[in-house]
Amino acid sequence: MSVSIGEFNPPARLLLGPGPSEVHPRVLRAMSAPLVGHLDPFFVEMMEEVKTLLRTVFATTNPMTIPISGTGSAGMEACLVNLLEPGDEFVVGVNGVFGTRMAEVAERAGAVVRRVEAPWGRIVRPEQIEAALKNASKPKLVAVVHAETSTGAWQPIPEIAKLAHAHGALVLVDCVTSLGGAPVEIDRWEVDAAYSGTQKCLSCPPGLSPVTFGARALDVVKTRKSKVQSWYLDLSLLAQYWGEERVYHHTAPITMNYALREALRIVVEEGLDARFARHRRNHQALAGGLAPIGLSLAAEEGHRLPMLNAVTVPDGVDEARVRGRLLREHGIEIGGGLGPMKGKVWRIGLMGESSRRSSVLSVLAALEDALRAEGRGVRAGAAVAAAQAAYSAE
Amino acid sequence: MSVSIGEFNPPARLLLGPGPSEVHPRVLRAMSAPLVGHLDPFFVEMMEEVKTLLRTVFATTNPMTIPISGTGSAGMEACLVNLLEPGDEFVVGVNGVFGTRMAEVAERAGAVVRRVEAPWGRIVRPEQIEAALKNASKPKLVAVVHAETSTGAWQPIPEIAKLAHAHGALVLVDCVTSLGGAPVEIDRWEVDAAYSGTQKCLSCPPGLSPVTFGARALDVVKTRKSKVQSWYLDLSLLAQYWGEERVYHHTAPITMNYALREALRIVVEEGLDARFARHRRNHQALAGGLAPIGLSLAAEEGHRLPMLNAVTVPDGVDEARVRGRLLREHGIEIGGGLGPMKGKVWRIGLMGESSRRSSVLSVLAALEDALRAEGRGVRAGAAVAAAQAAYSAE
Repeated sequence: MSVSIGEFNPPARLLLGPGPSEVHPRVLRAMSAPLVGHLDPFFVEMMEEVKTLLRTVFATTNPMTIPISGTGSAGMEACLVNLLEPGDEFVVGVNGVFGTRMAEVAERAGAVVRRVEAPWGRIVRPEQIEAALKNASKPKLVAVVHAETSTGAWQPIPEIAKLAHAHGALVLVDCVTSLGGAPVEIDRWEVDAAYSGTQKCLSCPPGLSPVTFGARALDVVKTRKSKVQSWYLDLSLLAQYWGEERVYHHTAPITMNYALREALRIVVEEGLDARFARHRRNHQALAGGLAPIGLSLAAEEGHRLPMLNAVTVPDGVDEARVRGRLLREHGIEIGGGLGPMKGKVWRIGLMGESSRRSSVLSVLAALEDALRAEGRGVRAGAAVAAAQAAYSAE
Repeated sequence: MSVSIGEFNPPARLLLGPGPSEVHPRVLRAMSAPLVGHLDPFFVEMMEEVKTLLRTVFATTNPMTIPISGTGSAGMEACLVNLLEPGDEFVVGVNGVFGTRMAEVAERAGAVVRRVEAPWGRIVRPEQIEAALKNASKPKLVAVVHAETSTGAWQPIPEIAKLAHAHGALVLVDCVTSLGGAPVEIDRWEVDAAYSGTQKCLSCPPGLSPVTFGARALDVVKTRKSKVQSWYLDLSLLAQYWGEERVYHHTAPITMNYALREALRIVVEEGLDARFARHRRNHQALAGGLAPIGLSLAAEEGHRLPMLNAVTVPDGVDEARVRGRLLREHGIEIGGGLGPMKGKVWRIGLMGESSRRSSVLSVLAALEDALRAEGRGVRAGAAVAAAQAAYSAE
């Protein structure tokens, strides 16, 4: 055999992009524990623990709260293909990549999609959703993105949930980037279904997508006229494996579930409120540090996410070159822009384990260096000093 | 927060069920390496290495050879929903759980499914496939399961591939359980598409599904009239991420890819031929050991898989109780039967790292114990001695 591929030696990175985020060593250790089978009594007990922990972070009592065996986009697709049938009317907020993606997935499921558009970086207004609901003949589902990873916009949920219900529709929320980093209150907000990812504020490697379905959503799934188009993501079949019956469906990703369990334990140990406060604090310090070096956040003021900071690239600065410098010279990953924001923003993630004072100071210092290398008149230490002042001001 | 879930301490198990199999410590170590981003130059290079290694084990030069971000069933669904459009005729061999599943997935994709049935445990005859092809008006795709994990039957492929092509159809093969444990010759057999899993003979944790698509299959995907119903599994979108363009699609499961890379390296280091011989040798010793304690294999003679041994449960023996004893008293996992074989067979997997002399002797000794506890007249050491003799006879 002529294939020769060497030892495995990944470089050390500080992950401050849009995810994956830094992973706690406890999670890596849990993940590398020896495997048991997917029907082993130990694993079955562990599934219950994962469900309990997920309910805590989703702030819900929904029994049907499980990790889908795929990444966040698989969770998105699972929610949409289970809740929508061909011909169903679907109202979706589109103000970034992930609202756009929901619309695309729903169209492939045969839904009649009514896009409610807002400029990228801004939130979708409840009155826009209301207008779309009034125009629809029988809206089945309304969906919005709580934390738009592509823009940094933080979408308020409760009013939209109320409007959906007033028009007889369910509400679905994309919590991929918010879960574990900002309040997600499934029960209090009366959200019917939601999905998330593991590699953002839960600080677990990517590979699973936690979802939660409330009673109304499960009713809709149970009374479908057609089979769910995806066998792999069919919630009724998944419920038989994750429920009392333990009927084999697919082989659960054992080690990913090990990792998720440990990551969720760490979240619960810190406490959700303390965790949200930490994310806010580091976000504010970052924002404070960006100002004196001429950088500002791209998302709508008053609706900026704490864990995902889209930073406008100043005119005359090469977005990709700065990002490349950060990676090569500092070992720091930040993200670039997507879609209409390509080349126009950097995306700095302060998610989960990545949301810490040392990350903020490191990325600001690295940005100072890179901007000076780009010929910008940036005073050494200016950003770092401003962030330190922000921390002290608390 | 009132949730209290303790330390993570999985029990030690010897995994001799239908998968997951034992994982080499090198793979666990690679998996627990620090993460890099899914667009990091290091990760992009690693993706190329994974593709190269997968081509080696699939014995193909297909450029489109990648891991799907889900378990084996996600790979099955990816192949079917990309190759089939509503109304397409699909001929599928059904002689166990996984042929049944393919038929179900294809129906959900709107295909006209022509099931070619054989009793569970037996193979599907080429002449049956030929008859179904002749009855079809314009067959698009023929699919069979190479290694039927539910029964232990080993399906020959080349003749069926020839028949499919003679009738203008593509051929798809389920290699979930065979890949890395028995010859899979995608190019020589002229197989158009195939999918596998990581947690069988590749001895990697579950979570990815390697797939390969040849030129004819890619043509069919490229000339589809309708969009692929699944966005997550859309091969054309996946190709943009795994190909030259590196367009973001979904966040790849970083650590699972780390694990797969290392598992594949181990396969290539051993050499495919040596690995297949090892699987055959341990299977023969197991079969030799079962005979003197009154146990026999359920699959058709001459078509028994080396890595998955379905063992007929003798009359009067409680299948689940024996399996429970093995797990509790010996820490050994074996599988039970599925569907019509529920309660009637045990499934002993000797896959990848699990296929070794010590596994064979351990499971035979444990079966001796358990059968004696069930009141069967089994002489202590009889099975182990017979297996030892089989090893010596080589």
